[in-house]
Amino acid sequence: MAKTFTIKRRVQFAETDLAAILHFANYYKFMEEVEHSFWRSVGQSVMTETDGAVISWPRVKTGCEYFAPAHFEDELDLILTVTDLTNKSVSYEIEFHRGEQRLAVGRTTAVCCTMDNGELTAVPIPAFLRTPLEEMAQSRKRG
Amino acid sequence: MAKTFTIKRRVQFAETDLAAILHFANYYKFMEEVEHSFWRSVGQSVMTETDGAVISWPRVKTGCEYFAPAHFEDELDLILTVTDLTNKSVSYEIEFHRGEQRLAVGRTTAVCCTMDNGELTAVPIPAFLRTPLEEMAQSRKRG
Amino acid sequence: MAKTFTIKRRVQFAETDLAAILHFANYYKFMEEVEHSFWRSVGQSVMTETDGAVISWPRVKTGCEYFAPAHFEDELDLILTVTDLTNKSVSYEIEFHRGEQRLAVGRTTAVCCTMDNGELTAVPIPAFLRTPLEEMAQSRKRG
Amino acid sequence: MAKTFTIKRRVQFAETDLAAILHFANYYKFMEEVEHSFWRSVGQSVMTETDGAVISWPRVKTGCEYFAPAHFEDELDLILTVTDLTNKSVSYEIEFHRGEQRLAVGRTTAVCCTMDNGELTAVPIPAFLRTPLEEMAQSRKRG
Repeated sequence: MAKTFTIKRRVQFAETDLAAILHFANYYKFMEEVEHSFWRSVGQSVMTETDGAVISWPRVKTGCEYFAPAHFEDELDLILTVTDLTNKSVSYEIEFHRGEQRLAVGRTTAVCCTMDNGELTAVPIPAFLRTPLEEMAQSRKRG
Repeated sequence: MAKTFTIKRRVQFAETDLAAILHFANYYKFMEEVEHSFWRSVGQSVMTETDGAVISWPRVKTGCEYFAPAHFEDELDLILTVTDLTNKSVSYEIEFHRGEQRLAVGRTTAVCCTMDNGELTAVPIPAFLRTPLEEMAQSRKRG
Repeated sequence: MAKTFTIKRRVQFAETDLAAILHFANYYKFMEEVEHSFWRSVGQSVMTETDGAVISWPRVKTGCEYFAPAHFEDELDLILTVTDLTNKSVSYEIEFHRGEQRLAVGRTTAVCCTMDNGELTAVPIPAFLRTPLEEMAQSRKRG
Repeated sequence: MAKTFTIKRRVQFAETDLAAILHFANYYKFMEEVEHSFWRSVGQSVMTETDGAVISWPRVKTGCEYFAPAHFEDELDLILTVTDLTNKSVSYEIEFHRGEQRLAVGRTTAVCCTMDNGELTAVPIPAFLRTPLEEMAQSRKRG
């Protein structure tokens, strides 16, 4: 498996603001999209069922640094890396590139939880979800 | 001036997600709303004109830690503090409370910029914008 | 009960776009907010439980006409009317005013449904939800 | 040119709501995305410059009928048709399909305008923008 997982994502009109740039909160939606694409690429979903429980990954920490603005119709590369993996959580880094230029870098820590109508309980990451994360994390160390 | 500036903000249906909680990216919109309310409370706007230039505050860094989920129709207190003030930038902390419970804490660093059709240039914070920020920052030190 | 139900709603920065106006899709979020505020004003919620079933109101038809743009920080009046009420559905009209000026008018038809994990089944409107809608609708006819 | 213009668009997590379906307001963002993709497919943009003026297409009327809900990770076909073309305006219809099933149909009327800092003035559609619209409209009549 590759060290990184990348998708292309175009900035849409509704995602810009009065300042004529991609609104800063929308970077977090982009981060989520590449993460969810990653899950699909390994045959999984960010929201799945196992042993009768719904499992998902609420965030406990997110952040983003912005180096240069993105504009309407820019096509960005969103580059996902697994930077940390614990018993119950995973941390990602997402780079936002426009061609050669790095526009921003985001970070997310998500916890594996069972979900019941808006109530969340942290659980150890099941093996079928841990394996693809480990492969990303290990390829990074070897990289 | 008070050490903090607070607004109440109800979680709207469109801001929830499939997990039946306030979507994590929408916390950043809430952060922006209390910041912009603060500017209005001192007779200013986050986007203003001076000497023929449009001035605004693009973000260079944002982040959020999430302790407990917020749900549809929850009425949150958004509590803004100025945590740092430099020649060209300001840092805010925003606490998300539901009654006595602290649900999340966000942080934002914004840079004072002139804006020209999506192009941004950092400038020293003009006095009429610096004064209310300083009053918030100083009351915090004294607090 | 009054013929109309009104809330004030300020246009937020994230809701504007590159054209420096309130993005046209966000009018639909405003429509939802005044509808949900109406439910709260009569002690109900747009999403509620009765007889062990979750009841909500998915839309079957929405629309909006735009007469003049709204801008950042405009404080709008959102004026809700019940225009039609059938056994299983309700139709609303929402006027968007900025002071004396009517900026837009929206229309929504929603169907009373039981909801089960994204599956929807239309049901007759229960009496405790029908009563406040009827009072709005009748006051309109008398108006 | 084909009678219709189609893109595929996956429903993202942030676009769902508490009812576990694609939020009704987000259909309008999808409509915009296929329209803007159409402009790019003919080498244009929904926001462009000509003779020193910025031209864009604010909406005067939008609407949507919903037949069946869309869910997280559904991959939809968004099928755009030009249904009417006047001196200054264009009307589109957008069908939302999931495989063989038609989930919704949206309609938009947009007016060709020059834009100046949030102020809009309707103008006749310039020839370089009219031509691709006419080709879509004519292919429809012949279709």
